[in-house]
Amino acid sequence: MRNLLGGKGANLAEMSNLGLPVPPGLTITTEVCAHYAENDETYPKGLKEEVDAVVEKVEKITGCIFGDPENPLLLSVRSGARVSMPGMMDTVLNLGLNDKTVKGLEKRSGDARFAYDSYRRFIQMYGNVVMGVELEHFEEILDQHKKNHGMEQDTELTGKIWQDVVKDYESLVEKDLGRPFPQDVRDQLWGAIGAVFGSWMVPRAVEYRRIHDIPGDWGTAVNVQAMVFGNMGDDCATGVAFTRNPSHGAKEFYGEFLINAQGEDVVAGIRTPNPLTNHAKNSNDSDLPSMEESMPDIFAQLNEVRNRLETHYHDMQDIEFTVQKHKLWMLQTRSGKRTAAAALKIAVDMEEEGLITKSEALQRVDPISLEQLLHPMIDPKAERNVISKGIPASPGAAHGAVMFTADAAEKHAAKEPVILVRVETSPDDIHGMNAAQGILTTRGGATSHAAVVARGMGRACVCSAQGIVIDTNAGSMRVQGMTIKKGDKITIDGGTGEVMLGEVATIEPKLSNDFTKIIEWADEIRRMKVRANAETPTDAKMARRYGAEGIGLCRTEHMFFDKERIIAVREMIMAEDEEGRRKALFKLLPMQRQDFIELFEIMDGLPVTIRLLDPPLHEFLPHSDEDISVFSKATGITPEAVAQHIERLKESNPMLGHRGCRLAITYPEISEMQARAIFEAIKKVTGVSGKAVDPEIMIPLVVDEKEFAILKDVIDSVAEEVFPDAATRPPYKVGTMIELPRAALCAGQIAETAEFFSFGTNDLTQTTFGLSRDDSGNFIPAYQRQGIFERDPFVSLDTDGVGELVSIAAERGRATRKDLKLGICGEHGGDPASISFCEKVDLDYVSCSPFRVPTARLAAAQAVLKKKDRKAG
Amino acid sequence: MRNLLGGKGANLAEMSNLGLPVPPGLTITTEVCAHYAENDETYPKGLKEEVDAVVEKVEKITGCIFGDPENPLLLSVRSGARVSMPGMMDTVLNLGLNDKTVKGLEKRSGDARFAYDSYRRFIQMYGNVVMGVELEHFEEILDQHKKNHGMEQDTELTGKIWQDVVKDYESLVEKDLGRPFPQDVRDQLWGAIGAVFGSWMVPRAVEYRRIHDIPGDWGTAVNVQAMVFGNMGDDCATGVAFTRNPSHGAKEFYGEFLINAQGEDVVAGIRTPNPLTNHAKNSNDSDLPSMEESMPDIFAQLNEVRNRLETHYHDMQDIEFTVQKHKLWMLQTRSGKRTAAAALKIAVDMEEEGLITKSEALQRVDPISLEQLLHPMIDPKAERNVISKGIPASPGAAHGAVMFTADAAEKHAAKEPVILVRVETSPDDIHGMNAAQGILTTRGGATSHAAVVARGMGRACVCSAQGIVIDTNAGSMRVQGMTIKKGDKITIDGGTGEVMLGEVATIEPKLSNDFTKIIEWADEIRRMKVRANAETPTDAKMARRYGAEGIGLCRTEHMFFDKERIIAVREMIMAEDEEGRRKALFKLLPMQRQDFIELFEIMDGLPVTIRLLDPPLHEFLPHSDEDISVFSKATGITPEAVAQHIERLKESNPMLGHRGCRLAITYPEISEMQARAIFEAIKKVTGVSGKAVDPEIMIPLVVDEKEFAILKDVIDSVAEEVFPDAATRPPYKVGTMIELPRAALCAGQIAETAEFFSFGTNDLTQTTFGLSRDDSGNFIPAYQRQGIFERDPFVSLDTDGVGELVSIAAERGRATRKDLKLGICGEHGGDPASISFCEKVDLDYVSCSPFRVPTARLAAAQAVLKKKDRKAG
Repeated sequence: MRNLLGGKGANLAEMSNLGLPVPPGLTITTEVCAHYAENDETYPKGLKEEVDAVVEKVEKITGCIFGDPENPLLLSVRSGARVSMPGMMDTVLNLGLNDKTVKGLEKRSGDARFAYDSYRRFIQMYGNVVMGVELEHFEEILDQHKKNHGMEQDTELTGKIWQDVVKDYESLVEKDLGRPFPQDVRDQLWGAIGAVFGSWMVPRAVEYRRIHDIPGDWGTAVNVQAMVFGNMGDDCATGVAFTRNPSHGAKEFYGEFLINAQGEDVVAGIRTPNPLTNHAKNSNDSDLPSMEESMPDIFAQLNEVRNRLETHYHDMQDIEFTVQKHKLWMLQTRSGKRTAAAALKIAVDMEEEGLITKSEALQRVDPISLEQLLHPMIDPKAERNVISKGIPASPGAAHGAVMFTADAAEKHAAKEPVILVRVETSPDDIHGMNAAQGILTTRGGATSHAAVVARGMGRACVCSAQGIVIDTNAGSMRVQGMTIKKGDKITIDGGTGEVMLGEVATIEPKLSNDFTKIIEWADEIRRMKVRANAETPTDAKMARRYGAEGIGLCRTEHMFFDKERIIAVREMIMAEDEEGRRKALFKLLPMQRQDFIELFEIMDGLPVTIRLLDPPLHEFLPHSDEDISVFSKATGITPEAVAQHIERLKESNPMLGHRGCRLAITYPEISEMQARAIFEAIKKVTGVSGKAVDPEIMIPLVVDEKEFAILKDVIDSVAEEVFPDAATRPPYKVGTMIELPRAALCAGQIAETAEFFSFGTNDLTQTTFGLSRDDSGNFIPAYQRQGIFERDPFVSLDTDGVGELVSIAAERGRATRKDLKLGICGEHGGDPASISFCEKVDLDYVSCSPFRVPTARLAAAQAVLKKKDRKAG
Repeated sequence: MRNLLGGKGANLAEMSNLGLPVPPGLTITTEVCAHYAENDETYPKGLKEEVDAVVEKVEKITGCIFGDPENPLLLSVRSGARVSMPGMMDTVLNLGLNDKTVKGLEKRSGDARFAYDSYRRFIQMYGNVVMGVELEHFEEILDQHKKNHGMEQDTELTGKIWQDVVKDYESLVEKDLGRPFPQDVRDQLWGAIGAVFGSWMVPRAVEYRRIHDIPGDWGTAVNVQAMVFGNMGDDCATGVAFTRNPSHGAKEFYGEFLINAQGEDVVAGIRTPNPLTNHAKNSNDSDLPSMEESMPDIFAQLNEVRNRLETHYHDMQDIEFTVQKHKLWMLQTRSGKRTAAAALKIAVDMEEEGLITKSEALQRVDPISLEQLLHPMIDPKAERNVISKGIPASPGAAHGAVMFTADAAEKHAAKEPVILVRVETSPDDIHGMNAAQGILTTRGGATSHAAVVARGMGRACVCSAQGIVIDTNAGSMRVQGMTIKKGDKITIDGGTGEVMLGEVATIEPKLSNDFTKIIEWADEIRRMKVRANAETPTDAKMARRYGAEGIGLCRTEHMFFDKERIIAVREMIMAEDEEGRRKALFKLLPMQRQDFIELFEIMDGLPVTIRLLDPPLHEFLPHSDEDISVFSKATGITPEAVAQHIERLKESNPMLGHRGCRLAITYPEISEMQARAIFEAIKKVTGVSGKAVDPEIMIPLVVDEKEFAILKDVIDSVAEEVFPDAATRPPYKVGTMIELPRAALCAGQIAETAEFFSFGTNDLTQTTFGLSRDDSGNFIPAYQRQGIFERDPFVSLDTDGVGELVSIAAERGRATRKDLKLGICGEHGGDPASISFCEKVDLDYVSCSPFRVPTARLAAAQAVLKKKDRKAG
């Protein structure tokens, strides 16, 4: 009934149907809203009579009369669309008060202060949201009264003063609009209802719907209910509660309440709220009486409601209640927000209690939240002095001494933990990033080099930290007027993006049984395999620990930045001719071979996708004068020659430059060396340890079938050289990244020779959108703010553009080669929404950073369930 | 019959059918080749008998007998595929000679030297291409003989010496292969035929076909013909001729011949050949007798052949003939190569002679060649000292003083013509490029900044000139060991890519009547409109002069680089906030308005597509220290602040960065100013001169319909402000560039608000291929060499990838909006193959640089004819 009644109305109706004590009232449906909009702001025939009849019923139930000066019935009017929307009218409370009924309220409650405060709140709310008087004018009047009486807090004002405020409020409305504040309670009611429906069509709401693709004909519902008050004496109370503990998930009633108070007082923090249960009272050592002891019968009722709601909704609920004159009223129920740990426990417990099925349990857990549980976290009890905030780029918390260069970070890391701080990182910084506990940059977004590498390595990372200006030469940075020097301590939280001064305590996570259980259930259901992106033995081991079923992306270039190797790599790049290149490559061969031997042994027969050299060669060249001189000394090449070479290799748009298989087309000897290292490693591993090996050699940045075929020939020739006897040649696959639009469009031809596709959705997103991930930080926020991008397309796969190319490629590729293996290895491989898309287009596996493997396992299971739902629906 | 007989065989057969004197022989069809390949190198049943029968016929016709020691018949064997192919066997001449028949030849010719030279040539050719003996071994023997006799030229050797050479050749073959050179003439014949068919399957030919998508089953034909000799006495001759003058097209017989000579002697340049006609003899003041006077009857026969061939082929022919003992033999005919001017004249003349239709005439002219006729050309009579060669990037020849900076070029251009020489150009160089006669760069390709701007401006340009090293600081460049200093003169030819030392004379073109006529005919036939890319009044006027029907792309940023304006542009970029930006934009408004007033007046009611600001803002910032200090002085902003701003705006991949409509989303005030300038210009032009205006406002780099809709709103609001009365508001269109893959895929949604699409195929190619045009110079040549790209995709539209996106966008866009206007404004708009594609997908217009407009008009007509052919076929 959500579509007809809106979210709030539906929950109220359901509670009412369950026989729970809901203040009586009615929900005017979204259909009426549509009628109102289409028919010149009029209501369907008979609505007035229906509303009148319900109000009469409410009068009978409550014993109060709407507009009666003696015993007035007060109403609340709230909007209730399917989704909440900025610009929409939200709530009018205390409707039904006027100059006469306020006196009846005063009499009934015996509290002038309460009555006139209620009245002035109503005038303010109604005057503003229904009649359009600006809020600040009301506030000016109130301030003036406080000033006149030398008072500071609203609570200090007496009934008399509130009465004066009411008069001034009424004059304000009359002066501002040229008509008095409505005294007829029925005018008030229809005014409020009309205002809710009218607000559906205000430009801001229309614009919001346009941007968010919300159909205008959904409309909003209006909920009209009798007011209940928790602040009419000591037999009144108000509170909020969760049906289970939202921070760790235990099956215990958890909440707070205040006697003789209004709902907002509980959260305002002026009075310390009381615990709900004795258990909570005891464990917190509280002096305040619990509801369980001070209102045992009401508590028992509430506990009963709690059970009814959980049984009905099959989920942990967040409820609001009010006790008016010893009677319990339920004001709201909805699914309760919870921590990742609580979500796991609640899901597992409820399955065991038989409340939900395994499938439901799986859908209750946000896959992304699992990652939080793997990384160190800021101790929630620790104090934190936040000095900047950036994009939370790689989860986990870390503290350490600030270092501004990769070399310094590496050196210093021997002594104590280090945070590497850079404007942005480059592949030159890899050793420093590896040595650091965390990485902080002042530029770049969630898919910048720093972010991607940090996630791959499991390092905490915050990018684009606001207000930090780095002076690398001086070895310091300025933020908020402070200067932080090399060696000073900071803490970063890659889950929130916060940067804190000093060492804030962190705690190590422990994986719960609930975690293990949920992931096991996910594994029973998911169809897609989950692999990890990994190149080092450390990463590969971590990947296996988290359940990766192979390596989906081994970026061989990461293996080249090692200090010993980089000299040979640079010699290769600077060589005058093929012979010189071959000489340098020959030095790299044994090291690269050893890399693969280790990976193959760790992965023990699981598939390993090895991507041949991808980045442009200039990324490997020395950048600083110091680096150049070191290299020059090591090789005898003059610094001038090095500088010239750097200049020669400079590119305007390196992302679209001489990289990927374009290197292999111009310098096939590089691919030959890499292929040789792979095949010789296979020979070693299968021969010595007798282990199985399942290698998939991947050619990056292909745009054309001829290009691929030429390079596959290079690889096949090396295989034939290393294993001359075809009979004993181990099986291997040669495939390609699909990471450029042309490759996707020409997938049918490419699949004639390619044996697998791996979607490189990072680059595919960059080229499909014409959007450099390194430069997009400047304007993606504006695009999200204006609703052009709902999510950063580098974080969540854009199904309309990039997704269409993926499905075109999958379809065309499979049409050519039925058993073509399809996977995804971009950053999106760890994003649940993107994983759901991968399931939809029937990929065989997703690959993500090791820390995201559990996330991906769960998301892959959810994707299967969602697909089933779609089919069933 | 071309498919069955190959090109050469088909022409020989046709000449024979026309009753022309062709040496008798036969063509073994391509079907036999297929049989040979599929059936273990055997021939179809009956072939041997057929060949024998034909040889017998040839014997009867020639009166010579194959293998007869007295009067031997000699044969030539040539391959004849549909296309010529590296690796394929080409020709064996003089087949039928052996140790006995050579004596018959000696006797018959009375010339031992001729007989043994012919024999040794045969052994060498046959020994090499059929038997596989390496050529250098034959050459070693020949060299040894020359050395022994102290001779240098082959022509000095006597018959006796050749006889010795023959003996040594025969020993070489026997030694090398272990079997003697075949003496049986039928073995020789089948050996040669088998070698031709066999060469179809050699790896090099197979690889070539794979790369060029030539089906393996096409096969090759083999042509076997009786040899004829033009060197058997003074009643023999040989020559080549064109049926019309190939350099200017006049209907005159044009050619050269030599008495008592072989075909290769005519082209070898050892003897000066005689003119064919008296007319040529007189106009060249030649002392040599013409064929017309020395062999009048043969000449008359040949002239008759000429007429028959033109009547038959309806085209100018390039023919080869031999006169053997006063008998004319036709050896070859094919369409003759001709200059652009000749092609025009021949096409127009032949149409007037009734030989061909207008449609055929149109198809006889290469559209690209027209551009040559618009630019100054190197005087063909001038001497040239070529010092480097690069990519011919913008046609025309130019000479001038070398200048290494834009400023120096601008300054010096007041005094004398200038060639601007840069490593590569940037938008900062525009004023220097404009001032220069020609631009020479050492980096970048045919679509680099230098090339694109130069073509737009009609300046000659050569890019990536080989071997030139520029030292801007020293003000000099080094090439081929020379140092060329600032002020030294060079000449560049943008049509050939040649760079020459000194001032080489150039000549100005004059458009012929033939040119005008062909273009008029084209206009009668073409469906697509042709517009020009232009932003300056000069360009716009030139565009109209060449018949442009509108401006398809006015790049507003080019208007910002003017010295007076750039300061305001930089102020706008460096402003701290929106207010500061608006202040600077306000200064630009009147200048930008004036730009549009001038354009609208020149275009006089023709459509003008104005693209809003496109490049990233950092392109406008000062780069050199000098520029920074000038700007700093003009504005009071410190050089440090400028430098910081430059640093802040730096992008890793500017092509994929904060540019195009992304600027407009973050700084809508820029689009507002531009829209205001446009609408105020419209107001002025329509109000004051009463001229019509047809403006199309184009939003660049769109990826999403929401993005477009937001910006269209900005433009529409300005229109409403400038023209508050809807009734008198002039019509205008708002549309978008489709230049990113996502825009193409989402075209259906974008067309809901966009009123036209213009395909920006430069950027679309960059993103579809993931290929930066500025960086691709390093590897595109390797891609072309290895046959991965047949043509540079920046020059000719890639129909498989980019083309599919264009047709997807056209289809989806039109499905949403039936009357959606579609055009192309990338560099491809001036490329005939790409224009043909545009016709295929039914675009409404193409837009190209002004100099390419005639090319595009002709190409658009050819595209219509080709489409009709496709439909008819």
